[in-house]
Amino acid sequence: MEAPKSLYRIVKTGGELEVLEPIKRLASQSRIRKSGVALGIGDDAALWRPRPNREVVLTSDWFLEGTHFLRDKHPPDSVGWKCLARAISDIAAMGGVARCFLLSLALPPSHTGRWLSEFLGGLALAAKRFGCELAGGDTTSRKDILVNVTVVGEVRKGEAVLRSGAEAGDLLFVSGQLGEAELGLRLVRRSSSRAGWRNPALKKHLYPEPRLALGQWLAEKQIASAIMDLSDGLSTDLFRLCASSGVGARVFAEKIPAVKVSGRAGRTVGDALELALHGGDDYELLFTVPRNKKNLLPPSFRGVPLANIGEITAARKIVLMNERGLQQMIEPRGWDPFRRTRK
Amino acid sequence: MEAPKSLYRIVKTGGELEVLEPIKRLASQSRIRKSGVALGIGDDAALWRPRPNREVVLTSDWFLEGTHFLRDKHPPDSVGWKCLARAISDIAAMGGVARCFLLSLALPPSHTGRWLSEFLGGLALAAKRFGCELAGGDTTSRKDILVNVTVVGEVRKGEAVLRSGAEAGDLLFVSGQLGEAELGLRLVRRSSSRAGWRNPALKKHLYPEPRLALGQWLAEKQIASAIMDLSDGLSTDLFRLCASSGVGARVFAEKIPAVKVSGRAGRTVGDALELALHGGDDYELLFTVPRNKKNLLPPSFRGVPLANIGEITAARKIVLMNERGLQQMIEPRGWDPFRRTRK
Repeated sequence: MEAPKSLYRIVKTGGELEVLEPIKRLASQSRIRKSGVALGIGDDAALWRPRPNREVVLTSDWFLEGTHFLRDKHPPDSVGWKCLARAISDIAAMGGVARCFLLSLALPPSHTGRWLSEFLGGLALAAKRFGCELAGGDTTSRKDILVNVTVVGEVRKGEAVLRSGAEAGDLLFVSGQLGEAELGLRLVRRSSSRAGWRNPALKKHLYPEPRLALGQWLAEKQIASAIMDLSDGLSTDLFRLCASSGVGARVFAEKIPAVKVSGRAGRTVGDALELALHGGDDYELLFTVPRNKKNLLPPSFRGVPLANIGEITAARKIVLMNERGLQQMIEPRGWDPFRRTRK
Repeated sequence: MEAPKSLYRIVKTGGELEVLEPIKRLASQSRIRKSGVALGIGDDAALWRPRPNREVVLTSDWFLEGTHFLRDKHPPDSVGWKCLARAISDIAAMGGVARCFLLSLALPPSHTGRWLSEFLGGLALAAKRFGCELAGGDTTSRKDILVNVTVVGEVRKGEAVLRSGAEAGDLLFVSGQLGEAELGLRLVRRSSSRAGWRNPALKKHLYPEPRLALGQWLAEKQIASAIMDLSDGLSTDLFRLCASSGVGARVFAEKIPAVKVSGRAGRTVGDALELALHGGDDYELLFTVPRNKKNLLPPSFRGVPLANIGEITAARKIVLMNERGLQQMIEPRGWDPFRRTRK
């Protein structure tokens, strides 16, 4: 046996605490009644108690500097809000309730102070807004800012609505307005400084609202035959829904609730239909409804418009009809991280 | 309304499939009976069915190129095995059973072929070995290889063993041999080429075995008052266990089951006690046992030695006793990602 060379005093391990302590503080200040979290941050793992007769809904999402946000252009509180909101959108798309989440965070030492504090502020607001408690995660040091969020949700047994349930003849709906987030992204990219959170044109890009209540209502009332969330753009996500259900779709261009692009912005950021078809990050719900249930759908749900943009077809192709009745095939041109460039 | 400029044919979205397809294949080939996974990869989120009267154990772990592994030195199948094994070790440390996991993977396009296939091979072996089914995750393209794994486990209600249960007078135990993984890491760093998976000195570093069965047995028989896994080195992790329980510890240096360091290697890679005290990545269990339960513990459990290395004290300091009865304080010198250098 050889003894260590010198006598040491017990010291609190240094740097990791600079990151862990504010995260622990957030967790203890953001407890959510009945979240089911029985043991939060501080042990080897978290403990969570599911409710009886539920299935657990599980999803993980990357949110990476350079890929999903820009360190110098996106306000830290928006990064915090959005990394959670977009993962929760996957829970909404199953018709589920969000219960708790795990945060994996990698940060440069330069960002453990104010940046971290603002990031956690935005995250805490989203956690409260969506009723989803921080239960655990992992932290490490890294040159780039890396985030991964796992959300744990619940849905009543047998009530989850999949992508694969659409049938020929079903009507195709979307919530909200499409292309708004993409428009916001283009405005942010263009600006020379960090985006202002007060600019209403940027709100949907910076602080998206997953459609939890709508998803739950569609699932509970058994109105929708298929649901998915629009994260990569309508052209790409509709393609996925159709592929998963073994069907096609006919979409009426003039019925797509496209973002308003007007004046000077309109001439430089692209046209509204293009934004609505191919823009990502909207986190609206795309869903199908059997014709005999159409009357159960209100024109809007809790202030969010619901638009019937087309119908599901047996022919496995996706067709866009314009107002003169001309048809075009839609190619998925939304977000695919492994394509070299975004067309 | 403005129509898109040209007519497109539906094409499968390109690059993402190169990554998603092999992962889906792995998932479908690695189904685990009674894992509880009701809906795997391919929808917005996964669905999983917990068993009745269980608490859910949740943990996420980073596994990042440059921080946790080296692209050119670590075989891809070891990266796949280890990213899952180390996350499962946190489940073992709660006394839980691993049920399913989510894989978040970011890869350069250059690594979607052979590297990915070997990585998934190692991951599949670990998934099978530890009875943990791939249920979902996220993929994206990135210059660096980034991995984040979330494991979902279960433990009978009230049976989870925390870090915080150690009391003065309890005996302190570790499983296995300490410092072996750190020794392996030093050998890998030194070698000029990619590590050979057949080298027995590297086995624990490349393919660690979380102590799932031991953790479950300690929890079920209610033998341990506290358990945690050794991921960052005994000096750091014992410090955490003691801080969490509000106690201290007295450790007997000659009782620490340190890795054997002999001959030429011994002169250059550091001494055995130093490796055992401060080396990370062992994924053994550190646990405390009330004295009146000492006789319930065998000298080894399923081939893994169990060593009584000391005792828990009321005085909140950690003391190392050498064979001449001299005391030294132990400072946590294991892995802390936010310290600039590893001392």
